[in-house]
Amino acid sequence: MTAPTLVIGNKNYSSWSLRAWLFLHASGVNFEERRVPLDTPTFKATMAELSPTGCVPVLLDGTARVWEALAICEYMNDKHTLAGWPTEEGARAMALAICHEMHAGFAALREELPMNCRARRTGVNPSAAARRDLDRVMAIWEGCRSRCAENGAFLFGAFGIADAMYAPVVLRCITYGVELSARASGYAAALLAHPSLQAWIAAARAEPEVIGHEERGSEVSA
Amino acid sequence: MTAPTLVIGNKNYSSWSLRAWLFLHASGVNFEERRVPLDTPTFKATMAELSPTGCVPVLLDGTARVWEALAICEYMNDKHTLAGWPTEEGARAMALAICHEMHAGFAALREELPMNCRARRTGVNPSAAARRDLDRVMAIWEGCRSRCAENGAFLFGAFGIADAMYAPVVLRCITYGVELSARASGYAAALLAHPSLQAWIAAARAEPEVIGHEERGSEVSA
Repeated sequence: MTAPTLVIGNKNYSSWSLRAWLFLHASGVNFEERRVPLDTPTFKATMAELSPTGCVPVLLDGTARVWEALAICEYMNDKHTLAGWPTEEGARAMALAICHEMHAGFAALREELPMNCRARRTGVNPSAAARRDLDRVMAIWEGCRSRCAENGAFLFGAFGIADAMYAPVVLRCITYGVELSARASGYAAALLAHPSLQAWIAAARAEPEVIGHEERGSEVSA
Repeated sequence: MTAPTLVIGNKNYSSWSLRAWLFLHASGVNFEERRVPLDTPTFKATMAELSPTGCVPVLLDGTARVWEALAICEYMNDKHTLAGWPTEEGARAMALAICHEMHAGFAALREELPMNCRARRTGVNPSAAARRDLDRVMAIWEGCRSRCAENGAFLFGAFGIADAMYAPVVLRCITYGVELSARASGYAAALLAHPSLQAWIAAARAEPEVIGHEERGSEVSA
């Protein structure tokens, strides 16, 4: 069986690519990776051939194509019987809900604090809407950790799809210096230490492309 | 076992409520329904007690709470082993992808053509962005129907989660007189004839509340 190919954007910038990649990589499932850098003259034409939405990420699995990061996680979770969801019913319900909430929501947070793994930014003041988004994310992390703290360091104990979905928010908090509660900070540290996320960040730091107004000089080591 | 309660908004206006309700109702699974009318002085306080996001729909299942319409569908599909997803792998991949695409996308379409089951509107001219959304929806319906036409009248043959997710778009096309291709029109007619959707529309027409600038006099029979 040929391994599926996950098509992703720049590791430094593409938060949706990170979500799908992180779950697959952390789960140990076999997949190839193809990087299509964003914001280049050929991006649009290349992606138009790979995905009906023209966006990254997309998974090419034989004749099947799966787009939308959460759909990719669920597809691979089901196909390979991975441990993406908690087994306990109430925790599983919460995990499904917060993953879909992340997938469809937090527009202000995503707009104002774009992912930029390797950068550190000061002086970014979130709007009231982005602040509400951040407060809601903190409430989610607190709620999950207070419920599942005895089972492990991640949102529902063991690493799962929910952690993949919120990983870019952890990276944004670091990039923009968002103040975290003790519990949220502990979660962020645990996720940041995950070998798969570390591998992603290392690759992001090695990428040559710079998009927009990023000043490479402002970067510090993670 | 106590039946879960699905908390919904007005049937005339709440497209996300329709998605969750329609899948549960069409699947024949046992559930209670609680309607919390939108845009009332008590809505916010009532919903704050029922869901961490304060939004409809939310499913109350014992101590478990599930918010986000697609999460509710997936939770109940798994718990009761319903037939929400196609069984064939490629079709299942596509169903997952288009459901997540609907859940997270089509912002212009949702903003400019709000659901209003019982109304018929003329003179609404979609923006270029909303037009692109509609074109993409049509491409999805065409793609699904050309793939699965021999298995039944719905997107993947038999009724499933994908039909529930796109049902409000069918209703919007009717309300705003969106021109459909023959194949898309056939799909819309099949979905509209589904007894569960008919029951929802009948209840929407019987609701007393009028929100915003709706002119009741402009209504015609569906």
